[in-house]
This record gives sequence, structure tokens and C-alpha cells, in this order.
Amino acid sequence: MTETMMAPALDATALDTLFLEARTRYAWAPTPVDDATLHTLYDLVKMGPTSANCSPARFLFVRTDEARERLAARVSSSNAPKVRSAPVTAIIGYDTRFYDRLPELFPHADARSWFAHSPAVAQETAFRNSSLQAGYFILAARSLGLDAGPMSGFDKAGVDAEFWAGTTVETNLICSIGHGTDEGVFPRLPRLAFDEVARIL
Amino acid sequence: MTETMMAPALDATALDTLFLEARTRYAWAPTPVDDATLHTLYDLVKMGPTSANCSPARFLFVRTDEARERLAARVSSSNAPKVRSAPVTAIIGYDTRFYDRLPELFPHADARSWFAHSPAVAQETAFRNSSLQAGYFILAARSLGLDAGPMSGFDKAGVDAEFWAGTTVETNLICSIGHGTDEGVFPRLPRLAFDEVARIL
Repeated sequence: MTETMMAPALDATALDTLFLEARTRYAWAPTPVDDATLHTLYDLVKMGPTSANCSPARFLFVRTDEARERLAARVSSSNAPKVRSAPVTAIIGYDTRFYDRLPELFPHADARSWFAHSPAVAQETAFRNSSLQAGYFILAARSLGLDAGPMSGFDKAGVDAEFWAGTTVETNLICSIGHGTDEGVFPRLPRLAFDEVARIL
Repeated sequence: MTETMMAPALDATALDTLFLEARTRYAWAPTPVDDATLHTLYDLVKMGPTSANCSPARFLFVRTDEARERLAARVSSSNAPKVRSAPVTAIIGYDTRFYDRLPELFPHADARSWFAHSPAVAQETAFRNSSLQAGYFILAARSLGLDAGPMSGFDKAGVDAEFWAGTTVETNLICSIGHGTDEGVFPRLPRLAFDEVARIL
């Protein structure tokens, strides 16, 4: 066993911050989220693993009143007030032409060719891996002491047209970040038990 | 600002463990991963947010030699040795009928009806949210001091038929967990810079 070394596990406070005590937020304190925080957040997210390092996620951080209203007009009626009160809402998309960057991102194989002529495989890979990256995003935000409020209730075609026009990016989900308040937070909803969803073979 | 309270951010060691120094592993020490660890892992993963708490991910933890060979036979030639050497490889799937649990998981709305007659929406929701949960899984494993080796190179139809026959579950990705060795670890691959993938609006 000399070839490996146990990495230290996170302490209980960190596990609470990431998973056990964290809550999806629906209302937000006005405390702003500055550029440096957004850069630090991305610098964590970008290190999470993706298939062949394909890194398909793209991010728009909606922070001005003007951009916020453009987004709020295109989300579901229950999500609009959340977007309006959040200091930042990230639009997390995926570049359908992510594979054009693979010669640089994964230089030791011709990974671009795995996707360039297989649109269904490219679409599935972009969607799966940008969703993984959204998972990293939520937990990276919590790592930095921010709360997260992910949402998938919005007019995708409308958000795509409003924010990604002229690009090859499509929206996957949106996620508010900032310092949440307790307003509207659900009592903790139940989760499925291990034996309902998992088996050890 | 009295309505909110800053959660403590994780310390630098924790950020290294989760994001900055963690590496995808391709070879594994024989150290086993016991049942208690798998339950603790799931107890973290299950708390991560999903849309309407839909929780579509399902998990098979492949740990016996017999199950490992069945899986190794259905993954790409480059992934087979990784599966064979890993103490556990999780098959992470999604239940295409996840919405049947929504009356229990999201009791304050008729969320089942949003999906039950909209197979495309159900499929997209299952895939997006089980991928988010896979992101939580990778980071939860790291939180516990395990390494992770996610893979999407496998025969999906073959894995589905071999492991999920008679269920409504389909495979999303697989992920080895355990204590990785440095064998075959790539030099750190480049990442896209903030300005290439993000904008602040």
C-alpha cells in the first residue's frame, strides 16, 4: 500500500456547508457578488473532471438590473422573483461546438473527430458534461460561502435567443448565487433511502 | 443585512481536495471500499439539489469480481483495465419513471403531472438531474478522501441490458472510486480561461 496515500477527508463543518446543511435559496440579501468572486468560482469549477476534458459549459453572469430584467422576463412566473432578487444569476449553457477546442484541451488524441461528425453524440456529451459542471458550480459556490439556487423552469428558446444569439451555445439551466435568506425555504424535503436507489453487487 | 449570515467558506486544503489538486484516477490500490463508506457517500449525494427534488439517479456499486468482469466486458478497451483494477465502480443511471416518486419527494404540488405525459421533458430532466447528481457524487467521494474516475466510454445498451434489465433505469455514466495510484495520471491538462467561456452582464 505504499503507492497510495489517503487524502484527508473534509471535516464535518465542510460536509455541512457542501451537502448536509446547505439549502436551495429562493430569496436573497442585496449583498453583491464581485468580479473577483466570480473568477475564483470559475477557477474551482473548471478543475472538475469532464469527459476527455471537453469542458463544454459556458457561463453568463447576469448582474446588472437591465440584464436581470431580460432574464426575469423569460423564466417561469415562480422563478421570476428569485431572479429579480438575486445579486447574480448564472446562465449555464453548453457550447454545441465544444469539440473544436479539443485539440488544445485533449492534445494526445484526435478527440475532435469523435464528435465532429456525430451530432447526437456531441449533443449528449455537451449536455451530460455541462450538467456535471453545473453540479461542480453549485458545490463550488457553497465552498466559497455563497448560496445557490438552481432552476430549470424557463423558456429555453427565449433565453437562448436573448442571450446566446450568434453563438453555438444553448442554455442548460440557470443558477442564482449570493447570500440567501430564509424566505420561502421549504422544510427539508424527503430523500430516497439507499435501499430504494442503490445496490451493492 | 441582519437577515443573512455568511456561511464559513472551506479552507484551502478542502478546496484542494475537492477541486484544485484532485485528479481523475486510472489505476487503483487494492484497498477495499466498505458498505459503510458507500452508505455515507450516498447520504451526502442525496442532499444535493435536483429540480423539484426529483432525485432521478440510481446507483449500482460493482464490487465483486464477478460483477466487475460483467462490467469490464461492456466498457471501452481503454476503460476495461480501470474497471478491473478499481475496488468499486459505480454505475450511475437514471430512472426514466423518476416522476412516480414525486408525490412523496415534492408533496406540495402535482409535480408528477409535469412529466408523466411528456416523455421528452421527463427524459431531459432525468438526464440533466442525474448528471448533476453525478457531479455531487464525484465531489462527495473526494470529500470522504476517496478518489474518483468517471468514465463515459462504454456500451450503453450492453450495460443497460446486463445490469438494469427489467427496470426503468438507463445508464448515464460510470465512476470508479477508491484510492487511486499515480499510474497513468496525465500531466494536468489545460483549462479554458474565464474570458473564453464566461461573461459578466
